[in-house]
Amino acid sequence: MTEVISAVEAVDVRFPTSRDLDGSDAMNPEPDYSAAYVVVRTSAGGEGYGLAFTVGRGNDLEVAAVKALAPLVIGLPVEEVLADLGAFSRRLTGDSQLRWLGPEKGTIHMAAAAIDNAIWDLYGRREGKPVWRLLAEMSPERLVDLVDFRYLQDALTREEALAILRQAEPGRAERTRHLLAHGYPAYTTTPGWLGYTDDKLVHLAKQAVADGFTQIKLKVGADQETDLRRLALARSAVGPDIRIAIDANQAWGVPQAIEWLRPLAPYKPYWIEEPTSPDDILGHAAIRQAVAPMKVATGEHTHNKVMFKQLLQAGAIDILQMDASRVAGVTENVAILLLAAKFGVPVCPHAGGVGLCEMVQHLAMFDYVAVSGSTEDRVIEYVDHLHEHFTDPVRIREGHYLAPVAPGIGAQLHPDSVARHRYPDGPEWATT
Amino acid sequence: MTEVISAVEAVDVRFPTSRDLDGSDAMNPEPDYSAAYVVVRTSAGGEGYGLAFTVGRGNDLEVAAVKALAPLVIGLPVEEVLADLGAFSRRLTGDSQLRWLGPEKGTIHMAAAAIDNAIWDLYGRREGKPVWRLLAEMSPERLVDLVDFRYLQDALTREEALAILRQAEPGRAERTRHLLAHGYPAYTTTPGWLGYTDDKLVHLAKQAVADGFTQIKLKVGADQETDLRRLALARSAVGPDIRIAIDANQAWGVPQAIEWLRPLAPYKPYWIEEPTSPDDILGHAAIRQAVAPMKVATGEHTHNKVMFKQLLQAGAIDILQMDASRVAGVTENVAILLLAAKFGVPVCPHAGGVGLCEMVQHLAMFDYVAVSGSTEDRVIEYVDHLHEHFTDPVRIREGHYLAPVAPGIGAQLHPDSVARHRYPDGPEWATT
Repeated sequence: MTEVISAVEAVDVRFPTSRDLDGSDAMNPEPDYSAAYVVVRTSAGGEGYGLAFTVGRGNDLEVAAVKALAPLVIGLPVEEVLADLGAFSRRLTGDSQLRWLGPEKGTIHMAAAAIDNAIWDLYGRREGKPVWRLLAEMSPERLVDLVDFRYLQDALTREEALAILRQAEPGRAERTRHLLAHGYPAYTTTPGWLGYTDDKLVHLAKQAVADGFTQIKLKVGADQETDLRRLALARSAVGPDIRIAIDANQAWGVPQAIEWLRPLAPYKPYWIEEPTSPDDILGHAAIRQAVAPMKVATGEHTHNKVMFKQLLQAGAIDILQMDASRVAGVTENVAILLLAAKFGVPVCPHAGGVGLCEMVQHLAMFDYVAVSGSTEDRVIEYVDHLHEHFTDPVRIREGHYLAPVAPGIGAQLHPDSVARHRYPDGPEWATT
Repeated sequence: MTEVISAVEAVDVRFPTSRDLDGSDAMNPEPDYSAAYVVVRTSAGGEGYGLAFTVGRGNDLEVAAVKALAPLVIGLPVEEVLADLGAFSRRLTGDSQLRWLGPEKGTIHMAAAAIDNAIWDLYGRREGKPVWRLLAEMSPERLVDLVDFRYLQDALTREEALAILRQAEPGRAERTRHLLAHGYPAYTTTPGWLGYTDDKLVHLAKQAVADGFTQIKLKVGADQETDLRRLALARSAVGPDIRIAIDANQAWGVPQAIEWLRPLAPYKPYWIEEPTSPDDILGHAAIRQAVAPMKVATGEHTHNKVMFKQLLQAGAIDILQMDASRVAGVTENVAILLLAAKFGVPVCPHAGGVGLCEMVQHLAMFDYVAVSGSTEDRVIEYVDHLHEHFTDPVRIREGHYLAPVAPGIGAQLHPDSVARHRYPDGPEWATT
């Protein structure tokens, strides 16, 4: 009997992070980090785990969106799916009725991410490889087949993408060895949440340096005086050589961003992240021009590859912040890595949340081994929340992500964590 | 007792339009025109009706999204809501957890549209006025208070918006009389669905001219030879003086669009609509430059005012196709009308679907009376589907929309139509 995808399960899992103001920023004062947690099962007993991250209310909608996509997936022969994951991705995002809810954006697209990531997890498990390695060992031709070039042609052709991958091919083995030995550089957002006291900020900033991080990040944008005070405190805590990124989480309009950032410049913020609406490509370009040499970074809310294409075409960003579950999963992110490489813009993935660190490290590591071939000016965000709930949590050493070795993409939660945090019936929620 | 909003009901209503290929185009081969139909009730027995349009599968998600937003609305004092609809809109779209699913895009944003439209309907009913007139009689100051300028400042300030409205103020009364006497120009998409035979196309195109329309629209983009044949047929059916718009529904990439359109130029298409991804601002700008004097139109999938702002800033469009339920309803559309007026780009609303004609005519008529002050090169799309299900259907005479006179926004369905088309339990669906 042909092995088919027999089930796509989706569970509403929420962690009550708002109780401690972990994750608080200018636009997200009280997030409850959550996941639309997906388990794909096959008729031969195979499993794949993926998720889409949300911040609480609405996670039920994300779960419902996964269930709406499930009929497109259930019954497909597994080998056919894995042999042409580009076609599978187009199937997930191209349904002629469901795409009206996007197209390729928001709730329905994040649901596609959760499923796509679960399928890549399944693939990694079958091959006995972590997903970064699975990708990094694919031929340039197979990788390029993952990309839907329909809306990318004016910025990146199939031939250009192939050339990028072929150029990186000879160094793959050496970079894989280097990665396994040294890991991939990380930075930490742990010190900088807006809800933390000054003392906690200073303590955690010093701790970050002691732990080997060379970059930290502070949330800004709620109150300018507070931002100045916190930035000064952080700068004196970490010294002149540690990079301090700041993150406004979309708090400003374009002229307001430029004005707000001017007095912060003496503290040498390395990048300003999400200074304005994530949809405002031209606005980011204007801000970038005004605040240079401060860098402009965005991406965690950039909803698909067409938006990333334009951010690059418009010269709007210095740093591309890929997210594992905002765009449609690993498959679309391969296209985005190729776009970034074409334009020579470093990818510094967004992470934190629930399972974002676990998943997105695979993309950055694949980028290093087989796409950009570099870790220069590249760091993966790290936040030390909620990793204990994963069966294969990220491992951080001396400010680096160690390369995962377990098969899959790392999104599997402990069954007990799922049971406890199911919303609204798990004991973590039922008792509050 | 203070009157409060006591209920926000949402119903999944679907019409089996795919059975006749009504509404078929290059990206939507078999739509079932549907609505997340919203009824807002007040503690004093007031009612407001609104909807978000979808094309079938996924309408249940849209209904679920309305229900997710409902707790933000229920219990609010009605007078407070109506006195500051700008604040109400920010409340609907700014919830710190739910906005993660957008922000301001896709499923969750369309749900905000359905509720916002229902609140405007409620407001019109209380004032005994159709919504176009309610808006057109508001002071410039109150209208500008509807607009969230946070992300618009670099293109449109509050002062500029006020100036636009004040300039149009003296002519309001005269234009209202003109509108009531003559209606607002329409064009028809009825002849041009991709699934129709050549004979049906020719017959309906001639009929449209006989009915007084001066513009029709054809769907293109599935097959170039077919497009050429159908365009030639339509041109000879309607003669040289009738405008023929064409609509690719996002079928092409940027270079492909330019190439595909070249041989169509001799038939003088008036505008090309949705030539590529709706997210591709820079792509639309490139296409516009290449295909002039053919005009470029888009908007039915443009997901919020920040995207419209950029389409205007980039010189990407000749025609702005406002949609009643893609962005967050009447309130956000007021901002978009002001942006269009600032940039001098005519608004030709997208309509058809379910209830889109009924709702969007109010915005175009308000624009004429109190914003742009003009109907030059402005037409509202008309499709003769499904109007019979509405209690106050649009009235078309000699190629014009007659101004609605009944209070509200026109989105109320006959209770019997709702009952018959409820999905999945209504008799239209249960028997198939």
